[in-house]
Amino acid sequence: MQQFHPSNTRGMIEMRCYQLKQWFYVKRPKGIVDREHYELRESDFSPQLSKNEVLIKSEYISVDPYMRIQQAATHSWEPPHPLNTVQGAAVVAKVLESNNSNFQPGDWVTGYTGWQTHAIVHGNEIQTLDPEQADVKTALGILGMPGRTAWFGLMEAGKPKPGETVLVSGAAGAVGSLVTQFAIKAGCRVVAIAGSEEKCEWLKTLGVVEALNYKAFSSAPQLQTKLLELGGIDVYFDNVGGMVSDAALTSLNLRARVVVCGQISQYNGGLDTPEMSPRFLHQLLYKRASVHGILARDFTHRMAEMIEHVAPWVKAGEIQFRTTEVNGFEYLPDTLAGLFEGQNIGKAIVRVV
Amino acid sequence: MQQFHPSNTRGMIEMRCYQLKQWFYVKRPKGIVDREHYELRESDFSPQLSKNEVLIKSEYISVDPYMRIQQAATHSWEPPHPLNTVQGAAVVAKVLESNNSNFQPGDWVTGYTGWQTHAIVHGNEIQTLDPEQADVKTALGILGMPGRTAWFGLMEAGKPKPGETVLVSGAAGAVGSLVTQFAIKAGCRVVAIAGSEEKCEWLKTLGVVEALNYKAFSSAPQLQTKLLELGGIDVYFDNVGGMVSDAALTSLNLRARVVVCGQISQYNGGLDTPEMSPRFLHQLLYKRASVHGILARDFTHRMAEMIEHVAPWVKAGEIQFRTTEVNGFEYLPDTLAGLFEGQNIGKAIVRVV
Repeated sequence: MQQFHPSNTRGMIEMRCYQLKQWFYVKRPKGIVDREHYELRESDFSPQLSKNEVLIKSEYISVDPYMRIQQAATHSWEPPHPLNTVQGAAVVAKVLESNNSNFQPGDWVTGYTGWQTHAIVHGNEIQTLDPEQADVKTALGILGMPGRTAWFGLMEAGKPKPGETVLVSGAAGAVGSLVTQFAIKAGCRVVAIAGSEEKCEWLKTLGVVEALNYKAFSSAPQLQTKLLELGGIDVYFDNVGGMVSDAALTSLNLRARVVVCGQISQYNGGLDTPEMSPRFLHQLLYKRASVHGILARDFTHRMAEMIEHVAPWVKAGEIQFRTTEVNGFEYLPDTLAGLFEGQNIGKAIVRVV
Repeated sequence: MQQFHPSNTRGMIEMRCYQLKQWFYVKRPKGIVDREHYELRESDFSPQLSKNEVLIKSEYISVDPYMRIQQAATHSWEPPHPLNTVQGAAVVAKVLESNNSNFQPGDWVTGYTGWQTHAIVHGNEIQTLDPEQADVKTALGILGMPGRTAWFGLMEAGKPKPGETVLVSGAAGAVGSLVTQFAIKAGCRVVAIAGSEEKCEWLKTLGVVEALNYKAFSSAPQLQTKLLELGGIDVYFDNVGGMVSDAALTSLNLRARVVVCGQISQYNGGLDTPEMSPRFLHQLLYKRASVHGILARDFTHRMAEMIEHVAPWVKAGEIQFRTTEVNGFEYLPDTLAGLFEGQNIGKAIVRVV
């Protein structure tokens, strides 16, 4: 996507020199992904921009659970992430130099240039952000991939109807917290599941009818009992899988829709060697329920449609977009590892300092 | 639904007397259902028909896997089948006496009067069958509940497109053999799975691209390998569950549709105490696949629509409707037990002799 030209013209006054930092993915994790699976490489470069190219410097870099799926040994929606390549990621960046009339130095942009401080991209690979319209970080969250996933996953696969009960797992996460708020706006009763009391307290302020800390339940049947007491589930938006899903899939109401958006509890090993779980397909038969796997990329071409619905809510302050920001490019792998321990509330972002 | 009037007028010349046989469901099975869970009761009765009522004598009685679901201890689509009641079932019957101008003695009819030789029903509870149009037994199979299940399950939930690969489990059964043929008519490549060489030989004559005896595969991964070699699965019509589903759910193509119609491998105990199986929801994510639970009763009101499509094929001999007939009312429980051992090819029917 981008190339770094060796500084064979170093010393010429018109060329600036930058210090590039990159996190390379170098070792396939078997269980937990961590710093040992990455390598930080530093180099100097002096960019030579071709026609329409832009040099950007990342200010905010995204850290997302899907990265660990790509590190599984097996084919997911694409082959396993090749070793010795820069970790892919969405970024919010500033234009440093431009050979493209659409971009001026100082402009805010977003693109998919990965875990590196700088990148040279063709103008087609980035989109301009207007900080007057919304905090630029929203491009990594509510007005970016997580927002698109939440919006289309809930509205198109979940098909929520007013008065229905929507269960959201990972409800305090980047996608889950948006699904929670979109479902409330759709007139639904939301039961939110998260992994700490702090997360549950926040979720209650968003207007959920119940916020459940799954760690307070010792088994799926115990959580199932609670879900049935709450009237059962019409839409289950699943970011987590595992025990929470075992409970949810046995608590479905007639014609329930299950949206499988993520399975974060399974990413550290369970994708290659699946955990065992109770069979539940007969439950779908009883309830004439359906389960739908969704992926954000399927809705990329409909980004404008999502933004049309959601941006006015963001501007009006009607939706909370919360971030967990980590300061320091060097903490990218740690921030990724932290996702699987539930360390983030809302969207996890690394600020490049 | 029907009542048997005690023969308090016995001896009057205008009253006929009949010997009624009924199979009562008397004991809840824990594992395999068998004769011990039923009791045969015999009695004499002399019918007194009220206005619009009809006395029918069953000639063919249906035996279906769903009966075992209703015997599970847990709520399925309805509460567990109450003990000490006649086993419900569809029948093909002849009218013996009629107090309803729409029915004459000798007419063939179908209704849902259960495992008993006679029944008094209101005319609204039965439908006339025309033996000139189709073998009356088709009312228990291709032009009855199994046909409706196969047709709407495949066409509406499965949405097969020409050239797609449709995997059918339980493909030699009442529903599976129809799904197989409907899918071929829809222009699909059908991979059929059954439990004996004899069944596979028959399925090959129907035009499937491959007929697999699941008993020849020692594990789900071995069957998965075969399914992937065959190009993966676009539509999986599942009557069986268990190991076959473990293989199928890991062999899905992009945007595959899974139709959960039955889970017969799980009925003898697995509904109350689910078996353990490998988690697969992440596979749905990768493939953006969907799983749909269906139930025949949801399409009852669209019976005419199914018959409009299928009856011409039946009349033209373009679809094979095969039955496994057992002679003798006394063998109803044994025939039900046999379903779970795969003893039937096509629709299992007991002929009342």
